[in-house]
Amino acid sequence: MKLMHAAASPYARKAWAAAIELGLGAELEIVPTAVAPGKDNSEYSSKFNPLTKIPAMEIEDGSVLYDSTVICEYLDARAGGGRVIPASGDARWRVLTQHALAQGMTDAALLIRYETFLRPEDARWDTWVESQRQKIQAGLKWFEDNPDRLEGSLNLAQIALGVLLGYLDFRFGDDPWRPEHPKLEAWYAETVKRDCFAQTLPS
Amino acid sequence: MKLMHAAASPYARKAWAAAIELGLGAELEIVPTAVAPGKDNSEYSSKFNPLTKIPAMEIEDGSVLYDSTVICEYLDARAGGGRVIPASGDARWRVLTQHALAQGMTDAALLIRYETFLRPEDARWDTWVESQRQKIQAGLKWFEDNPDRLEGSLNLAQIALGVLLGYLDFRFGDDPWRPEHPKLEAWYAETVKRDCFAQTLPS
Repeated sequence: MKLMHAAASPYARKAWAAAIELGLGAELEIVPTAVAPGKDNSEYSSKFNPLTKIPAMEIEDGSVLYDSTVICEYLDARAGGGRVIPASGDARWRVLTQHALAQGMTDAALLIRYETFLRPEDARWDTWVESQRQKIQAGLKWFEDNPDRLEGSLNLAQIALGVLLGYLDFRFGDDPWRPEHPKLEAWYAETVKRDCFAQTLPS
Repeated sequence: MKLMHAAASPYARKAWAAAIELGLGAELEIVPTAVAPGKDNSEYSSKFNPLTKIPAMEIEDGSVLYDSTVICEYLDARAGGGRVIPASGDARWRVLTQHALAQGMTDAALLIRYETFLRPEDARWDTWVESQRQKIQAGLKWFEDNPDRLEGSLNLAQIALGVLLGYLDFRFGDDPWRPEHPKLEAWYAETVKRDCFAQTLPS
């Protein structure tokens, strides 16, 4: 399997981390790929993903899977199924909903990054940044208030949450999340020691 | 089941349309809900979705599911499974990847809407709009070039695509998608006659 990957992308990291957690890391070829809004990405767009988003994954039969969530579902099935995503029942909807929360927080973090780094200074809009920041804060509070969701064997929601927290450290170190979220801090301090996080640090 | 819904949201429409297509429309209570970036949405955020995004769905046991994709997966399982999302195998990854494409196109359309409607005029950035527009155009071209993916019984990728095309008509009528995509035009003309689209028009 070939994973189109960028070292700063939390979505690419999530897919890679899931593969490692599922014991499939050695079967994955990591292909460094650069795309960005406003740049010409036509080769990547035509070959892999018309959205020019990372990650995409090419599998042995030549077909291409995306987005990161679909890739993770595929990897889970390939590893036997029900490993990082419960196969059925309440547990499945709970994990997938919490994953959607962590994913939406990540989307918000990326939108802040685009707004405050990529966009010309005279075209920035504080209300937008604050609106995205509120989504991240509300999500952090939700996980802090529901610490039972951080327990059990590592699931996809937890992988996405760990990747998000790593991304906040990586891009927004001046807006620390730890002081108001001691349970998340303790959980993260242990969780990042796992191979799936330690081997996929953003850069 | 209670679906938190906004009449202009393509994500809410997708969930409602999937329910109707799956024969579950009558079990769904549609709850009109207003959220927007920059507005106070704290009641919705604390009760349903910390991301303050629509839709969310409350089920009989009181638990809340989101995002629209998780809701659709849940509805599919509730309707027996494998109905609008193939249960396993190549067909599953194909439909989920095409759904991610239609969904990413919808995300791009929403970002254009926010940029050109919600954001103050002096803080708009043409490069951003053009970058999102390219994602939509590349996705339209992909479906136009792969018309076999429009065949068969209606699947979640096709529901998301139909909802996107309806959203483009609803919000971007001055940038018509039909002239360059005759196969999509013909497919859409037939598909929108189905109950799941006819009963869920945006407004």
